[in-house]
Amino acid sequence: MIGRLNHVAIAVPDLEAASAMYRDTLGASVGAPQDEPDHGVTVVFIELPNTKIELLYPLGDESPIKGFLDKNPSGGIHHVCYEVDDILAARDHLKAQGARVLGNGEPKIGAHGKPVLFLHPKDFQGTLVELEQV
Amino acid sequence: MIGRLNHVAIAVPDLEAASAMYRDTLGASVGAPQDEPDHGVTVVFIELPNTKIELLYPLGDESPIKGFLDKNPSGGIHHVCYEVDDILAARDHLKAQGARVLGNGEPKIGAHGKPVLFLHPKDFQGTLVELEQV
Repeated sequence: MIGRLNHVAIAVPDLEAASAMYRDTLGASVGAPQDEPDHGVTVVFIELPNTKIELLYPLGDESPIKGFLDKNPSGGIHHVCYEVDDILAARDHLKAQGARVLGNGEPKIGAHGKPVLFLHPKDFQGTLVELEQV
Repeated sequence: MIGRLNHVAIAVPDLEAASAMYRDTLGASVGAPQDEPDHGVTVVFIELPNTKIELLYPLGDESPIKGFLDKNPSGGIHHVCYEVDDILAARDHLKAQGARVLGNGEPKIGAHGKPVLFLHPKDFQGTLVELEQV
């Protein structure tokens, strides 16, 4: 069912420093910051030859990554995103297998303009999993 | 400098349950467990079209992921591995930029039979980074 790894998301306490680290120290191709007010984050995409790293920084007081950064003040890997062909079919299959979908269970439009869902970390070895329909 | 994302490693408290979750619930291609006594882990590779997920389970009393699982009993994302062409050149560049290399700074042979190094998470936004020469 799952296809490509679309991205690995890393929450960071300083977006500029993290961007500089990936650009200058690791020598990767680092994009410009994009505000995603609907998701409460500012994101920077790092393009690797086969996938992306997504740096996440809180935007607004209700940012969903604020709690994560409170617990992990240096930052840390926040989630992985797998691609699926049909997000509603994937959701229904996962629910039938007993996996929990976060929120109201309906896909939202993600940072790439495509439907996404998040799955409960407790059902996936402590890993927050995002599914994105491509 | 960094190239492809070689893999994302996820430490898991139950290798069989995690393998079944990726195989049956997420529908991915899941390999057989391989013991890596030199690294204190048993690994299962999950082949995605563009990269791999590496499930890690402690092997032996001195396993380096034991402490991680004590802190994260459900499991969690443990590290990301980026490919480099020349691991010694990469190491020297990183050290010149002030990044810390773990251990004695000399590459070890990793789970894929290739030279690897780990970088200090505090220097990379709380993310443990492995470099692998390909």
